[in-house]
Amino acid sequence: MSRTHRRDQLIEFIKGLLAVPFVLLSQPTATYGDDRTAVDAMVINAQARYGQIMLDMEGMIEEHIASQKIPGTISKLKLLVPSVGVFFTPLPLKAAFDFQDKKRRISSRRFVAPSFNDVRLVLNTGQVMALVQRSKLELVTFDGDVTLYDDGETLAPGNPCIPRILELLRKGTRIGIVTAAGYTDPSGYYNRLWGLLDAMASSEDSAKLEHRLVVMGGESNFLFTYTSAAPHRLVPVPLNEWQLPEMSTWTEENVKALLDVGEAALKDCVECLGLPVQVLRKERAVGIFPSKGIRLSREQLEETVLVVQRVLETSEAGKRIPFCAFNGGNDVFVDVGDKSYGVMACQRYFGGIEGGKTLHVGDQFLSAGANDFKARLACTTAWIASPAETCTLLDEIEHLGAGEQLTT
Amino acid sequence: MSRTHRRDQLIEFIKGLLAVPFVLLSQPTATYGDDRTAVDAMVINAQARYGQIMLDMEGMIEEHIASQKIPGTISKLKLLVPSVGVFFTPLPLKAAFDFQDKKRRISSRRFVAPSFNDVRLVLNTGQVMALVQRSKLELVTFDGDVTLYDDGETLAPGNPCIPRILELLRKGTRIGIVTAAGYTDPSGYYNRLWGLLDAMASSEDSAKLEHRLVVMGGESNFLFTYTSAAPHRLVPVPLNEWQLPEMSTWTEENVKALLDVGEAALKDCVECLGLPVQVLRKERAVGIFPSKGIRLSREQLEETVLVVQRVLETSEAGKRIPFCAFNGGNDVFVDVGDKSYGVMACQRYFGGIEGGKTLHVGDQFLSAGANDFKARLACTTAWIASPAETCTLLDEIEHLGAGEQLTT
Amino acid sequence: MSRTHRRDQLIEFIKGLLAVPFVLLSQPTATYGDDRTAVDAMVINAQARYGQIMLDMEGMIEEHIASQKIPGTISKLKLLVPSVGVFFTPLPLKAAFDFQDKKRRISSRRFVAPSFNDVRLVLNTGQVMALVQRSKLELVTFDGDVTLYDDGETLAPGNPCIPRILELLRKGTRIGIVTAAGYTDPSGYYNRLWGLLDAMASSEDSAKLEHRLVVMGGESNFLFTYTSAAPHRLVPVPLNEWQLPEMSTWTEENVKALLDVGEAALKDCVECLGLPVQVLRKERAVGIFPSKGIRLSREQLEETVLVVQRVLETSEAGKRIPFCAFNGGNDVFVDVGDKSYGVMACQRYFGGIEGGKTLHVGDQFLSAGANDFKARLACTTAWIASPAETCTLLDEIEHLGAGEQLTT
Amino acid sequence: MSRTHRRDQLIEFIKGLLAVPFVLLSQPTATYGDDRTAVDAMVINAQARYGQIMLDMEGMIEEHIASQKIPGTISKLKLLVPSVGVFFTPLPLKAAFDFQDKKRRISSRRFVAPSFNDVRLVLNTGQVMALVQRSKLELVTFDGDVTLYDDGETLAPGNPCIPRILELLRKGTRIGIVTAAGYTDPSGYYNRLWGLLDAMASSEDSAKLEHRLVVMGGESNFLFTYTSAAPHRLVPVPLNEWQLPEMSTWTEENVKALLDVGEAALKDCVECLGLPVQVLRKERAVGIFPSKGIRLSREQLEETVLVVQRVLETSEAGKRIPFCAFNGGNDVFVDVGDKSYGVMACQRYFGGIEGGKTLHVGDQFLSAGANDFKARLACTTAWIASPAETCTLLDEIEHLGAGEQLTT
Repeated sequence: MSRTHRRDQLIEFIKGLLAVPFVLLSQPTATYGDDRTAVDAMVINAQARYGQIMLDMEGMIEEHIASQKIPGTISKLKLLVPSVGVFFTPLPLKAAFDFQDKKRRISSRRFVAPSFNDVRLVLNTGQVMALVQRSKLELVTFDGDVTLYDDGETLAPGNPCIPRILELLRKGTRIGIVTAAGYTDPSGYYNRLWGLLDAMASSEDSAKLEHRLVVMGGESNFLFTYTSAAPHRLVPVPLNEWQLPEMSTWTEENVKALLDVGEAALKDCVECLGLPVQVLRKERAVGIFPSKGIRLSREQLEETVLVVQRVLETSEAGKRIPFCAFNGGNDVFVDVGDKSYGVMACQRYFGGIEGGKTLHVGDQFLSAGANDFKARLACTTAWIASPAETCTLLDEIEHLGAGEQLTT
Repeated sequence: MSRTHRRDQLIEFIKGLLAVPFVLLSQPTATYGDDRTAVDAMVINAQARYGQIMLDMEGMIEEHIASQKIPGTISKLKLLVPSVGVFFTPLPLKAAFDFQDKKRRISSRRFVAPSFNDVRLVLNTGQVMALVQRSKLELVTFDGDVTLYDDGETLAPGNPCIPRILELLRKGTRIGIVTAAGYTDPSGYYNRLWGLLDAMASSEDSAKLEHRLVVMGGESNFLFTYTSAAPHRLVPVPLNEWQLPEMSTWTEENVKALLDVGEAALKDCVECLGLPVQVLRKERAVGIFPSKGIRLSREQLEETVLVVQRVLETSEAGKRIPFCAFNGGNDVFVDVGDKSYGVMACQRYFGGIEGGKTLHVGDQFLSAGANDFKARLACTTAWIASPAETCTLLDEIEHLGAGEQLTT
Repeated sequence: MSRTHRRDQLIEFIKGLLAVPFVLLSQPTATYGDDRTAVDAMVINAQARYGQIMLDMEGMIEEHIASQKIPGTISKLKLLVPSVGVFFTPLPLKAAFDFQDKKRRISSRRFVAPSFNDVRLVLNTGQVMALVQRSKLELVTFDGDVTLYDDGETLAPGNPCIPRILELLRKGTRIGIVTAAGYTDPSGYYNRLWGLLDAMASSEDSAKLEHRLVVMGGESNFLFTYTSAAPHRLVPVPLNEWQLPEMSTWTEENVKALLDVGEAALKDCVECLGLPVQVLRKERAVGIFPSKGIRLSREQLEETVLVVQRVLETSEAGKRIPFCAFNGGNDVFVDVGDKSYGVMACQRYFGGIEGGKTLHVGDQFLSAGANDFKARLACTTAWIASPAETCTLLDEIEHLGAGEQLTT
Repeated sequence: MSRTHRRDQLIEFIKGLLAVPFVLLSQPTATYGDDRTAVDAMVINAQARYGQIMLDMEGMIEEHIASQKIPGTISKLKLLVPSVGVFFTPLPLKAAFDFQDKKRRISSRRFVAPSFNDVRLVLNTGQVMALVQRSKLELVTFDGDVTLYDDGETLAPGNPCIPRILELLRKGTRIGIVTAAGYTDPSGYYNRLWGLLDAMASSEDSAKLEHRLVVMGGESNFLFTYTSAAPHRLVPVPLNEWQLPEMSTWTEENVKALLDVGEAALKDCVECLGLPVQVLRKERAVGIFPSKGIRLSREQLEETVLVVQRVLETSEAGKRIPFCAFNGGNDVFVDVGDKSYGVMACQRYFGGIEGGKTLHVGDQFLSAGANDFKARLACTTAWIASPAETCTLLDEIEHLGAGEQLTT
């Protein structure tokens, strides 16, 4: 019954490994003043041991990647962390750890062991290093809320991510914004992303940037491409330019059947749990949301997601086409398709970019119905916890890429 | 080394007990549509079993209270939950569970087990019931930030807690605001609490309310009492009207020695962890805080608190007078004394109110250096997670108190 | 890496469920003398709650059995205990618990929670009740060492299991002894089982008992049937009377290839681990054993089993025919086939007895390479820990079967 | 409620630390044949990492010993393993690990992680090394059953411990046998220990060995010293030559009161648990034992021990003098005093031997009422699991002691 609070097993596993040197080396009973030597020795020793573990992890990931290519084999990492998924690139975790350790002083801590967030950020940095130093980063896709701007806000001018995304675009990297928000019209997306779109339009090389940024709405249902033209800077992309072969089954009939089942399940939840919400049916989605000022509890949101997911999974309609039931912070929605299709459609639109050259940045990788999770099937990912972390990640992309040229 | 993330063991214990009926009864494979009968039976059955466990807990708490009175004995609850503290009243947990179950539909959930928050709110309601139905609630003390208003905000007019606190005051309940904020002048407190103080001053019975509300600053260092007089509505209370006998050791010399050690420890941390902060020395406190716009990580805050705590604990100065090192969300401070002294001083000022007739409402009961935690030594407590929860709790105080008169 | 010490998850799960009432009800602080009433109340209360949990388990097992019949469904029990296998019959666990509680006074204990052994014995009794009261017990198969006689001993006259097995035979139940010992000649089995075979031969109805007892050697390789004729009381059964269709691939060539790989792997272990053993190649098995007086450690035995298992699993030869690498207490052997084939061959020989009418009694269900474990694929099982427990189980078969006639 | 199955926390802690290198380095997916290089690298790497952890443990134990001498301080080891007790000597665990690794090939294992027994034996070897290489081993005390001979057996001629104990005696080491068996007459002990006592008497230097071996009966109640005189080779030692000052309260009256309470508690258990036993009252003990051929279950034995312990702890009589309630394998006894007094009395008799120069060898350190456990208060200890392990330990004492002279 641990389905609701499934934790990221890989991060927990690495955290567990790091706990041993921490326990052995930390000096809880030393006081800095008296025992500076002991603490200094601890720091050097801890760096070495944490680094050793990170090197071991690198080796296990490489073996896992090798094993991915040979059907019927199972890697040691898979034995140890059964939920581990596909890796698109090796990860230079030792270097990534050293980088984060300089910033976060993980090895200097005597009471707070290497934490979930420490490990998450090391994995992000390792992924960035792999992409910008060893492979080539051709496409970055972003989730919207929490990733680029605070929940419920918009990507307004002044958002520090804007200049960084522009820089990426200028260097030739393609950008996709893959969001759950599902409008059929460009205006809806413009109202969310105006700061970025206007900045692109008013930049010197505005024309050159056209068609280098796309917006995928409804997870994987509506694709728009950037043009400089006002008012909305976005135009729909013809279906044949982006739809995947497997989307051919997403017919009106199948979509309707899926959303009917989802809607009925949501209504059952509303009644059983006494939820103070309204039901909203959209073209490619159905969901519930509360009146302004009311916050649903985590328990209500997760229970609803899990019930709806279960009902859909076991329904006829849910077996015909893919779907995604997710907790949107203060609402629950069922979307047709999911972000793996969204990212793959962006890859296709840009001429067939590979998963190992694509990075999806999002905040929803953990809780029940985390819709960024599915992107892991399509490409490498970075798990951020706030727009500020996205901004820092974009800086790492710039500096670690540049750094490589210096050191090699 | 589990010191950093110590969890509330009593809540975790109860949550663990409730997990068994959840596992046995929940119907993860049922779908509401088809199996309404199965789900309905589950709800009734779950209510009964959760209730049974709550009754068992009531009994254990009663035995614990009995054992508190007999030195040398150890209660079964203490054996099971070694960190459990003093209970000032029995708790009607079965009734409290039924109350929360109606609101949160805990028994109706099939995927999300009874959660930490469910149990926390049941304990709060149980505590309120015990105070308003079985004992008498003579004093309510509140933490400031997060409890009465959002972190870093102020208690502005329109805050829904204001009319509810006024109602309590009118009924004769005394109010204390026991905050870490440590100003020596009334204006500092007025600037934080103006919405409430002005509402009291402009109410019909403003004069009657005088000296029924106090503000304790710096945890336990500066006491002010409400008067209707502008501009600040607060006047200092003479020391002899509130200070506790044990505060006689809090001499200038001892305070200075303590803060000197604390300051040195903080500076060591700033260097070792490379913290982007300034050090601030106050009359009865010393702390660090970052420049505007910078957020310290949880790891930085907790490591600093724990190091400083450890250094102080083992220092000569730290053995002479009590202190409290705490994580203020984005800063770390060391205060002289702690909230247990703060609440006890309020109790003394109001003529010796007992712990079993006092309720402290706060949000800091868990993480390293949670400063409301110490209030548990002085009185009953309610652990809230947001100002909205404080508001709901005040409603429970009103309605559950009235409800009693109806049912008896 | 929890592969070595895998515990029986179902038993651990039930034990975990029972721990909650134990914790809630037990009276560790009561002393019998003073608090007899409290203890008496505890006993009654504990019986009720343990019983309630057992009833819940009965329901979950029934749902699991229903789900076994519908491909593509997954039972709640399977969600909760992923390693749970096939159930051939429902289990009356409430009645079984009451039966064992009378003997073991589980509900009367105040310090020792319901244990692994308590639950194991409840499951055994429940299985016996299901077979003798609700179904029909047509075949009982036994492991040899530890099950019928102490490790390395023989089934000598005077062994209390003998009269009980004779009683079963007289009532028409067939008996199989399914052992790892792999002799090609009857004399080897006679030397182990002489007490039972001679008792059968000297009984009044000796002739009637012929062909009602069989001995399967080498797990599933050599079948002998009882006749009263001296000296060995056993004659080989023609292959066409017992071999299963799937055994047609067990050709000399495939067997040789398998044993060659197993032998090489064993020799690698001997060298790598420095084992003081000899290698023994038999017709249908290969193994290692130490000189007399030397005991291998558990770690040596388990490591060897797991390495050999792994090598065979990934080998070409190991994919062609089934095998079983097991820890024999002080030796390690690889056998062709396993006990599931052994039991199924007995079932076939006796005219096609069903799994739900067969009981396999053995002691090896837990540790690495536990060879009775595989019998769970063929029939119901009882997990005993000593010959004394086998004897008690046979008494339960007699008395619980008789009891049924009284109560219905 | 984890009182019954308390595990040895120090061993579990070390085992947990070793699990990390095991997980990182083990090659579950390699097969010896193909990947000999990978396996060989693993072995070397594992030795280094396990050794590093052992060195860290050495440091922590040294710090713990230093902290033992400064009241009010708490060592890091104590923070990490709260149940850790007194250390009488540092432990060269790295060398001890290397020694055991050569024998047990811990670093060569790929599936079986470093186990409880591996760590237990490393600790034993480390303790022996500390005593024979760095300190001086002046006294070895042994438990009787399971330690020197199988449970219920006697120390017969031919027991391989005999020549090894004689060797120790000849070198000047004193020997004590500290047993729960409580006879007031030498014959009882002679009947158990005859093989050793006769071997001493018939040895060339029999006279020289007189008074170098003592037998302490009833844990700490009756002391006999070896003389060569037949028939029993043992004579009582006058009380004033061995009794400790704190034994002056063990008056007839206090003993009677204690045993009365113990007897009543045992009888309560017999009734409540329906135990098939008799009660036996002795001079300094009271206990229960079953009729021949009946085995009590672990649950019955532990429940009885824990109830009796609890009743005695909370009784007036149990506060007056020390006692020890223990599970004797198939009986439960309450003895006056415990093995810490028994060992200290031996130390006193031999002229005041220190704890750091004494080694107690026993098998009862874990389960409820493990009577060797208390010896840890008096001296260093070795925890063996069988007479064969005692024999091996005696060999280590001889060879590691000799080895030192070679290497220094």
